[in-house]
Amino acid sequence: MLDRLSHVSIVVPDLEAAAERLAHAYGMVAGEILVNHEQGVRITYVTLANAKIELMQPLAMETPLGRFLQRNPGGGLHHISFAVDSVAEVSATLENSGVKTIGSATAKNVHGEPITFIHPKEFLGVLVELEEKPSDLPHDPN
Amino acid sequence: MLDRLSHVSIVVPDLEAAAERLAHAYGMVAGEILVNHEQGVRITYVTLANAKIELMQPLAMETPLGRFLQRNPGGGLHHISFAVDSVAEVSATLENSGVKTIGSATAKNVHGEPITFIHPKEFLGVLVELEEKPSDLPHDPN
Repeated sequence: MLDRLSHVSIVVPDLEAAAERLAHAYGMVAGEILVNHEQGVRITYVTLANAKIELMQPLAMETPLGRFLQRNPGGGLHHISFAVDSVAEVSATLENSGVKTIGSATAKNVHGEPITFIHPKEFLGVLVELEEKPSDLPHDPN
Repeated sequence: MLDRLSHVSIVVPDLEAAAERLAHAYGMVAGEILVNHEQGVRITYVTLANAKIELMQPLAMETPLGRFLQRNPGGGLHHISFAVDSVAEVSATLENSGVKTIGSATAKNVHGEPITFIHPKEFLGVLVELEEKPSDLPHDPN
């Protein structure tokens, strides 16, 4: 059900500076900067061989992401995301296990794909995102 | 250089309870529990299609992991780990970029493979582990 990691997400205070830091120090190249107004966030991705790193900068401080940044001014790990075939089906299966997903049933990621979240209390203290078939999920070439 | 995610690591207060929770609610099966006395931690892994989830329970509270647990009693995301061909070579390359790795030069993970860490201040607020060729790193079958 949750057997494929899509990405690890990091909140940063300055997206351009974060991308520049990863490029300069680690040779990691971030893609174009996308804006998800619904989620209130600017986003870019570093594509690895087998998953992605998501960098997120909140558009406003009075949002959950903005408050995360207030608690972690330098940035930090925010959530992990699994790729699933159907967010609706996995959500229903989880509901049967007593795990409620959170967020709007029509929520979409920056690529327009359905997403939902599992509250940290339900997953060992970790915020978990479910993404429906991320179209550009890298496949491991090895 | 850092293009392959090995695992995402979660600190938990009770390893058996965490494994049971993942199995019951999500159908995720954790492997055997291993003990890394050098790192002061009990560990188990959930193997996904393209990476692993590491669950860690500190052996003592007066350790960095124990203090993390004191700050996050329910557990939480602790670090991400990249698989690299040579920890020594990557460490030297990073040093040339002005990024110091931390920890003993002879540190090993629970599988006996060389590891090192990059301080969160060097990587967008995220603690990063480098692991040398994890022998059981799953390959994406797709």
